Amino acid sequence: MAQHRTPGKAVGLPAATVARLPIYLRGLNEVKARGIEVISSEELADSINVTSAQLRKDLSYLGGHGTRGVGYDVTDLIQALSVTLGVDKQWPIVIVGCGNLGMSLAKYAGFTNRGFKIAALFDAAPEIIGKVVEISEGQKVFIKDVASLATFIRENNIQIAVITTPAAAAQGVCDTLVNAGIFSIMTFAPISLNVPSGVDVRQIDLASELQILTFHEQTKANEVIAI
Amino acid sequence: MAQHRTPGKAVGLPAATVARLPIYLRGLNEVKARGIEVISSEELADSINVTSAQLRKDLSYLGGHGTRGVGYDVTDLIQALSVTLGVDKQWPIVIVGCGNLGMSLAKYAGFTNRGFKIAALFDAAPEIIGKVVEISEGQKVFIKDVASLATFIRENNIQIAVITTPAAAAQGVCDTLVNAGIFSIMTFAPISLNVPSGVDVRQIDLASELQILTFHEQTKANEVIAI
Repeated sequence: MAQHRTPGKAVGLPAATVARLPIYLRGLNEVKARGIEVISSEELADSINVTSAQLRKDLSYLGGHGTRGVGYDVTDLIQALSVTLGVDKQWPIVIVGCGNLGMSLAKYAGFTNRGFKIAALFDAAPEIIGKVVEISEGQKVFIKDVASLATFIRENNIQIAVITTPAAAAQGVCDTLVNAGIFSIMTFAPISLNVPSGVDVRQIDLASELQILTFHEQTKANEVIAI
Repeated sequence: MAQHRTPGKAVGLPAATVARLPIYLRGLNEVKARGIEVISSEELADSINVTSAQLRKDLSYLGGHGTRGVGYDVTDLIQALSVTLGVDKQWPIVIVGCGNLGMSLAKYAGFTNRGFKIAALFDAAPEIIGKVVEISEGQKVFIKDVASLATFIRENNIQIAVITTPAAAAQGVCDTLVNAGIFSIMTFAPISLNVPSGVDVRQIDLASELQILTFHEQTKANEVIAI
């Protein structure tokens, strides 16, 4: 049961490699949808903007899935990557925070065919608790009271949660999640979360992403001036 | 004018450092909001989950902003980071793709106080072109026809664009943006975009982020089994 899990430590693959595996899987599914059954490392690398040396090195961690001079069997490699990433099955996820962003993620069609389904939505605001949301055609879910979050996670063995609350509420929600046995969190709240060692947090800070772009715009502009 | 810009090359700072600068700025603004005027590198590093050695090294690229044994002047460092990131001014951005995700970004309050404002929204669907969206209290914008995207970018000197279209439309939109003079793109479309050298793309692939988490869950589960 989830409440008896203790955080483990994922070992073996470099973090940068792990971060690229989903991109390889996505690229291979695109290739497969075009009817291609065998692809060279150069073609696959090209289609996803990495070098073929990088691709070959990353995929070598999964064992031998390519044939020299021939390439990769697309279906075989999709299967191997799906198993490695754990998305040969579907993971139920909960979303905490039902503002615009949380609602758009609940309705995001791109999760379903990549290993995820929305198990439940939670919020703290009395005026929206109990509201019915149609997250996809025919699939309706209630917005539940965040007070029932820990119980829901334990009873349904949820392992992954998404935080889309305002910054001020995020650490409290995070603590509840971790205490309930969640060790994998994706958060959009623009605040650094404190979690015990062994808990994985993927933070997507939208304004920070844009600020990385403005840094480069700024630098380019200064160079133009400098010339 | 935007159409006469050529892509430059941002130099000087390691990419990983650039990616952390917005986090430092965000952390410092949190600290300032709590009324703190001077902070040690240890305290600041701690609050944003980096090591103080990393923090000091990253900030050393900006020149001397700390005093040994005293710490950083919070307001001074906020100013230096804002200038370096180019967010001492506000950047107008356009969002292309007005589905759930695009709409939630248009209404995302976290952009405004971190250097960005929504200049315009675009979509290709006739049934929503012309629709009025209240993106914040009192600020309404029309959804414009994507056919007018290039003209709008040139006439308004837009430098940053966000793509929230379905995967199938994203490359076409990207090409339009680049041809109109955009060299900084944030995209949520789950597809690898082809851009000329000098164009910066920040891709946020939501399902890939979750798959990085499932990889770790999977690995931990296997280890538990292995014990």
